[in-house]
Amino acid sequence: MEQAQTQITVTLNGRGMTDITRQVATWLAQTGIHTGVLHLFVQHTSCSLLIQENADPTVQSDLERFLSRLVPDGDAIFQHTAEGADDMPAHVRAALTATSLSIPVGQGKMTLGIWQGIYLYEHRQQPSTRRIIAHITGC
Amino acid sequence: MEQAQTQITVTLNGRGMTDITRQVATWLAQTGIHTGVLHLFVQHTSCSLLIQENADPTVQSDLERFLSRLVPDGDAIFQHTAEGADDMPAHVRAALTATSLSIPVGQGKMTLGIWQGIYLYEHRQQPSTRRIIAHITGC
Amino acid sequence: MEQAQTQITVTLNGRGMTDITRQVATWLAQTGIHTGVLHLFVQHTSCSLLIQENADPTVQSDLERFLSRLVPDGDAIFQHTAEGADDMPAHVRAALTATSLSIPVGQGKMTLGIWQGIYLYEHRQQPSTRRIIAHITGC
Repeated sequence: MEQAQTQITVTLNGRGMTDITRQVATWLAQTGIHTGVLHLFVQHTSCSLLIQENADPTVQSDLERFLSRLVPDGDAIFQHTAEGADDMPAHVRAALTATSLSIPVGQGKMTLGIWQGIYLYEHRQQPSTRRIIAHITGC
Repeated sequence: MEQAQTQITVTLNGRGMTDITRQVATWLAQTGIHTGVLHLFVQHTSCSLLIQENADPTVQSDLERFLSRLVPDGDAIFQHTAEGADDMPAHVRAALTATSLSIPVGQGKMTLGIWQGIYLYEHRQQPSTRRIIAHITGC
Repeated sequence: MEQAQTQITVTLNGRGMTDITRQVATWLAQTGIHTGVLHLFVQHTSCSLLIQENADPTVQSDLERFLSRLVPDGDAIFQHTAEGADDMPAHVRAALTATSLSIPVGQGKMTLGIWQGIYLYEHRQQPSTRRIIAHITGC
């Protein structure tokens, strides 16, 4: 059993989903690990890791429209507004989605289903740079 | 340290929760691994993995009623309706619940609490067959 | 590759978030593992594990206010009310948040971002004692 760890950096223009599948797969291939488990962990509380449908881009806009309605920016129940109307909604969205993902690896690849992509979902409106720790344990 | 990996297949009649605890436990026992971590990963974007109360069946119907209200089938905000009124709601439900679970194993068994069962939660209305990758790392 | 496992017990006064970061970090330091992955798993279906902003306490009260509105205690759609008006809402909140977390470890520490704390989020109103299994695999 071996392990490898790296930091993946993603630059984002603002709220929305960015497909990081290829970036993760490229690093995985470099590790040479054939069978194991890949862990992804995002080091922020205003964005999420998400596995979602990777074929039709309206899935992303529909999910965003749903979350914008469920957790409205500027909602009067929020007191934590230091960084703006999207500050607390970003934390709520992060709580409702995922900070860590664990994806089994087989035959040197992530065992993703055919329609599954890995996304970094940014919840703040402003551009930012986000860090993800990727870790693989296996053989 | 050793590892083992398998694919678990579940056939479902449509929307709802199916208890897969026994199926997972049976495979775990076959691996002979005593202490470690078991990972489950569902290879689809219209169903989820969920750990929930396993005693009272009204928990399942209540959770379903809550999600049906929160993410209504046929909601007019959704454009991704290619596969029907439950297509995009299934993706939203999957985003709000879990695609991967990691369960520690001790004394040869999953360390589930007494009221915890592992469920595959199908979000589409139609029958389907779903695949879960199970992976255990341990000794 | 080595592994270690322990049970962490947390006593709570009722609904709300309790920071368990230090408790987890103390155990991790005792294991002596430098690089690996730390898994946390809560053995209950009425509380959650959550990584959230650890600086401003209004994040916690805002998140609680949001969830109380989203999943109201005593909602008439719930039949599972055996333990009170907060019984089923606790299960729904648990389904919408996380039962397991996987956090990479590097240089002997969890690779948490600067604003990330690990919380046990109790969803029942009454005091209780909750158990978390912590497991580390690494070198």
